[in-house]
Order: sequence, then C-alpha cells, then structure tokens
Amino acid sequence: MASTPQLSTPEDNPRVKAVFDDIRATRRTDFVNNMWRALAFDPSLLESTWSEVKRLMASETALDPLTKEMIYIAVSVANGCGYCVHSHTAAARAKGMNDAQHAELLSIISLAAKTNHLATGMQVTLDPVFDLSTKK
Amino acid sequence: MASTPQLSTPEDNPRVKAVFDDIRATRRTDFVNNMWRALAFDPSLLESTWSEVKRLMASETALDPLTKEMIYIAVSVANGCGYCVHSHTAAARAKGMNDAQHAELLSIISLAAKTNHLATGMQVTLDPVFDLSTKK
Amino acid sequence: MASTPQLSTPEDNPRVKAVFDDIRATRRTDFVNNMWRALAFDPSLLESTWSEVKRLMASETALDPLTKEMIYIAVSVANGCGYCVHSHTAAARAKGMNDAQHAELLSIISLAAKTNHLATGMQVTLDPVFDLSTKK
Amino acid sequence: MASTPQLSTPEDNPRVKAVFDDIRATRRTDFVNNMWRALAFDPSLLESTWSEVKRLMASETALDPLTKEMIYIAVSVANGCGYCVHSHTAAARAKGMNDAQHAELLSIISLAAKTNHLATGMQVTLDPVFDLSTKK
Amino acid sequence: MASTPQLSTPEDNPRVKAVFDDIRATRRTDFVNNMWRALAFDPSLLESTWSEVKRLMASETALDPLTKEMIYIAVSVANGCGYCVHSHTAAARAKGMNDAQHAELLSIISLAAKTNHLATGMQVTLDPVFDLSTKK
Amino acid sequence: MASTPQLSTPEDNPRVKAVFDDIRATRRTDFVNNMWRALAFDPSLLESTWSEVKRLMASETALDPLTKEMIYIAVSVANGCGYCVHSHTAAARAKGMNDAQHAELLSIISLAAKTNHLATGMQVTLDPVFDLSTKK
Repeated sequence: MASTPQLSTPEDNPRVKAVFDDIRATRRTDFVNNMWRALAFDPSLLESTWSEVKRLMASETALDPLTKEMIYIAVSVANGCGYCVHSHTAAARAKGMNDAQHAELLSIISLAAKTNHLATGMQVTLDPVFDLSTKK
Repeated sequence: MASTPQLSTPEDNPRVKAVFDDIRATRRTDFVNNMWRALAFDPSLLESTWSEVKRLMASETALDPLTKEMIYIAVSVANGCGYCVHSHTAAARAKGMNDAQHAELLSIISLAAKTNHLATGMQVTLDPVFDLSTKK
Repeated sequence: MASTPQLSTPEDNPRVKAVFDDIRATRRTDFVNNMWRALAFDPSLLESTWSEVKRLMASETALDPLTKEMIYIAVSVANGCGYCVHSHTAAARAKGMNDAQHAELLSIISLAAKTNHLATGMQVTLDPVFDLSTKK
Repeated sequence: MASTPQLSTPEDNPRVKAVFDDIRATRRTDFVNNMWRALAFDPSLLESTWSEVKRLMASETALDPLTKEMIYIAVSVANGCGYCVHSHTAAARAKGMNDAQHAELLSIISLAAKTNHLATGMQVTLDPVFDLSTKK
Repeated sequence: MASTPQLSTPEDNPRVKAVFDDIRATRRTDFVNNMWRALAFDPSLLESTWSEVKRLMASETALDPLTKEMIYIAVSVANGCGYCVHSHTAAARAKGMNDAQHAELLSIISLAAKTNHLATGMQVTLDPVFDLSTKK
Repeated sequence: MASTPQLSTPEDNPRVKAVFDDIRATRRTDFVNNMWRALAFDPSLLESTWSEVKRLMASETALDPLTKEMIYIAVSVANGCGYCVHSHTAAARAKGMNDAQHAELLSIISLAAKTNHLATGMQVTLDPVFDLSTKK
C-alpha cells in the first residue's frame, strides 16, 4: 500500500528517466528502489530530492561514506521512518558496516534516546559553558 | 527552572560523590554539568546512567569518539532535546569537530529529516531486497 | 494485526450503531473505516472522538475543507502515523487535491522538517520581534 | 515569549471568566496557570479543552489520579513538551508523588525510549501472538 | 522483514541461550518474542537490554506492574513504535488491564498529545511556580 | 545561547552578504532573523537553505501563501521546534491570519495529534480502499 499514485511505466517521462538513469549510473546498479519510484509522480520533486541526496551522500565530502550513513540511520530511527531505516541500513551494510559496528550504532542511538528522555523529563537547566554562540 | 528537586550540596551523599569524582577523573576536568546534578536526586538512577554513558561514550569501542558524538547529536536533534544538543555539540567540538564537519553533520541530519518525512508522507512500500532478516 | 479487541458485530451495541449511522449520513457513504471500528470497543471514546472530528472536519468552519485536510496530513506525517497519512490523503484526494497540490504539500512538509531540524540542531536564539504575547 | 496574543484582562469576557472560575473551584486554588490564559484568546477552544481535561483528569475515573498524571507526564516527555512536563510534574507532586516514584517514572520513560529506538532500529517483525484484534 | 540479521539457531551461542532461559524462567513461559531474537545478533546488547528490562519491569519496585506497563505503552505510542505498542499492550492485558482501563489509558494518551500540541503551538510561557529546582 | 558559532559581522563574507541582501529584498524589510544569522557560519548551507525556502515559500506556487505558512506551522508544532513555531506564526500573522483562523489551525493540529495517538495506540489495520498506489 502507498498514499501516492504509482506510475506503471514512470520512465515514459523523460525527466523521470534521466533521474533513474543517473541513480543507476551513480550507484552502479540496475536497481531503483521504491522511494524514487514513488517520487516519480512529480518530476520536479524527484529531481530536487535526488540532486540533494546525490550531492551529500554519493559524493566525496568532509565525512566518510559509512559515517554519513550511520548518522542518516540515527535520524531515521528517531523519526520513526521504517522505510528509511531499512534502506539506509542496507546501504550502510553495502558500505562495509559489520555486526559490531551495527550493534554499537544501535547502542548509541538507544542510549541517546534514553538520556534525551531523562533530560527532557527533568527539564535540566542549560550550563552556560555550553553556549557556543560567542566563540567567534 | 527544572522539574526535579536540585540538591544544594549533592556530594554530601557518598554515592553521588563517588559518581561525580569518577566523572571528573574520566573527563579530566573539575566541571560536572547539570545533567548529572539533576540526576543526583536519585543515586541509583545517577549511577546506572553514568555507568552506561561511560562504558559506551568514554571508552575505546568499535567506533571513534567523534563519530559517536555525531550520532548522539543526530538522535538528540531528531528527539528535540535542546539540553542534549547543546551538551553533545560542546563535546564534539572538544573532540575536534571543525566548522566544516559541523555543517556537514547538520546537512545530513536535515536532509534525513526531509526524506524521512517524504517517505512517511508517501507511505512508500518496502523493497523486498532491504530485508536483512534472512541473511544468516 | 491490532492492539485492541475488534468486535465482529459492533453495531449490536446501539451507541455504536448510532455513531456509525451518523458517520454514514455525514459522509454520504456506506463505508465506515477501521479507525471507527477499532474505537467501537469503548462507545464513550467512540462518541467523543467522532463528535470532535465531525464538528471540526465535517462542518463549515473558518478554513476550507481541503486546507483542513492538508494541515491534518502534515501533523500526521510529522507524528509518523501511517494509518492517518493513508486515510487523510484519501480524504484530501476525495475533496479535490490534485497531483500538483499533493506534491507541493509534500514539499512543504519535508522542507519544514528540514529547517525544524536545522533550527533545533543550531539551537537558534529567539528573535524578540517574534513575541506575539504583548500584542493585545 | 509566546506565539499567541495574551489578553491583559481575559476575564472581561464572561465565557473566559466562567472557565477560570470553574478551574479555581475544581482545583481549590486562586491560581490559573498560563496554559489557560494563553487559550483565552479563543473562548471556544478554551471551553472545549478545559471541559475535556476536567472530565478525564479532575473527575473520578477507572484509574487513580496519580497514575493518570504519570501517564500524562510520560506522553509529554516523549512529545518534548517542556511546559507540559513542568505543569504535570508539579501536579503529580501535589498529588503525592515522592522522590522514589518520580525516579522510577523517569527510569521507565527512559527505558521505554531506549527499547522503542532499538525495536525501530532493528525493524523487529511482529509476533502473531500479539494480535489482539481477534480476541472477541 | 527486519533490518538486522536473524540467526536461525540463536541458542547455539551459550550467552544467548542463558538470556533466553532467564526470559523463559522469569516470565514462566516457553515463548521468547522477536525483540529478543533480533537482539541475539549481538550477545552484549542482548544481555544489557534484558538485564535492564528485568530489573525494572519484572521485579518488585515502587510502582505496581500494571501501572509500569501503562507508562511504557504511553511512551511507546508517543514515540510511534508499533512493535512496542503491540508487545506491551499484550503484557498489560496479561497483567489484568481490562477494556475500561485500556480505553482510559488511550483517552489520557490522546488528550495529553492534544494539549502537548496546543502548548507547543502557543509556546506558552512557563509559570514560575512550576519550578521544582529550589525545593530542597 | 546557541550551539553554533555566531559571527559578529557575518556580512564581511560576500556570499553571506548576497544571501542577506536577497532576504531583505524578497521580504521587503531590513530585518534578517536569527535562523539565517546562525546558518552564516557555513555559506553553502546558508545558500542552499535560503534558495529552497525562497523557491517554495516566497514564490507563487499552487497553494496560497497563508495555507503554506499554516502547513509549515503544523509540521513545526508536531516536530517540537519552538523557534520555527514562533517565526512561522509571526509570518502567518503578517500574511493576514486572524484570531479565528489561528484558533482553528491550533484546533486541527491538536485534534490530529489526538487521533494520531489513538490510531497508533490501537494499531489500527489499514483499510485496503486507502491504497492509492494502483490508481494510475
């Protein structure tokens, strides 16, 4: 089930085809996952979303590829996006995440959630030393 | 303001003093931040929380210290914990996070939030290939 | 699967039947969706929930029907309620939401999520000019 | 700071005065907290909100008053509502919650958050035995 | 589907077998639910998680067992963890939660969510009287 | 307080100055709010964020300006971003949102939150008729 219309032949639209072709070329696979197929109902939204994901996640940047995937997973878990957890965990595994790293990632995510709820539950007062706004 | 009682001299309790001393020794600083001072109203909760944070965040583990802090920040942002964002951003800066890494961390967190909401808004169907449950 | 008992013949209870009849009459359809069937295990909760939804969403109010559905969808996406996203997207489509409006709705939701996470991640200080509390 | 207009003399409006009087009588105090003062900009929203809170939280129901406050706090923490955590923690303390109960409440909230994130992070498959939909 | 590897014979690992045996003995049942089977891919994470759940949820503490389950459900609903809602609702039912208590629990959770969103939407200013930090 | 460095003279950087000038020209005001000042520590992130906000929120699109702001507020409330609630409520007021519309917006947001939590708490089964994936 899904809450957007799914096109049976999305690549009939040349703008959709161009994005799908770039996804295949960038990732070196014939597989285009459902996230992009769902976005195909609006070529502009598909183009801007892929462009942003490609620039940050599929290019060389300050952080290494696996670290980036683990941060992505952490946000996706906290936001409760099941699809995203599945797809980015698969991506992290493809980029070399082993069982020990996966378990540690889950440990940090769940510990952070625990202390997030403790700090919010106690409404802890901010320590002035944490203010970074006047450092420059 | 806070929603738990704050003890004026928490270290009168020897269990609290032992934890605070360990925090100071582990972090090599005299500073004990308000999170731990708030937890001091219940020594058991203070002990178990510090023990877990120390074991995962202040020890050598599979992931490097800065990566762990960035994952912690990601969860804290998504869970909307202002105190946690402040304290762990300060910790990440202390562990060497520079402006470029900080900006990229924020870029990934906000891009993940964007695609999390897109995937949830479209209720994208899971691709069977993302199933990791049968790999072993 | 569900986590509340489902009654096989909920309308045996006259209070449940009265609500279901009102749902059918108000929406001009024989269809009563699973949300109301699940609530039928407690007639009081069913009555108060339907009464509130009917008064706000199925009556003439300050905002037009489609705008109200789009706001409802936005909250449901951010709260991660898959059932609600599905049911209110179907309702918005029934009220005339076309592909372009749907895509723009998703674009705003995901952009808001992005800047929400940026503002929380940077812990931006409030501008005094945003204070509306002294305007009256 | 606040994002709704604050009326300087809200009780000039007889509908607002009636609700404030009922709050004072029900709670046996002259104090009307800012939540209700903020809602006063729309008498209908004020009336319906207070009516619902009074019926569930200030009346005899199936659950005892302190249990109800603790459940309310749990939701407020998970939803990240600082105002609500403060006000309902004060209410729970007024209804007899002691330090040990408060610490245990925070322990359960934070443990639940931890396992919520673990279950979401692992995308655990539902056990069929948890299905309650066919029990009646 | 799941996003962690599932072991076909997890109890071949003696550490996993020890935890599963303790779960069965503590709960007096042969049934070990999927949450623990998923955690089995990392025996350390399995041990620490079960140890914490057992200490708080399966032992005599300040709060009674049913109250603890209801608080756990409240957090799980607000965090949008479907698995957790299912498993802890089943646990609460097993500990005696009847239809009236279940309906009231859902009523409080949803009312709290409503006023959480109202307070956040109005950005209500904190009443100084709610400050508990100076009470001791 | 803030968790990113604040530049005292951000417009010394010509890329920052260009964005600030465009914000002032687009909004016809000399005021540049703190969100953009905070983003100034990374000119690329500032440029891409403003570009996206301008394209969607400050241009003529399918939805009218006030509806877009109300959807933005709804997401910001549900995500618990206090800064965003303040800034977009001020923007909506500037675009003509009156008290009645504001109250109705808050009513819909809080009702959606209520039924979101009810649907999640009951784990309501999806009605097949809500599947939009096969409509095209």
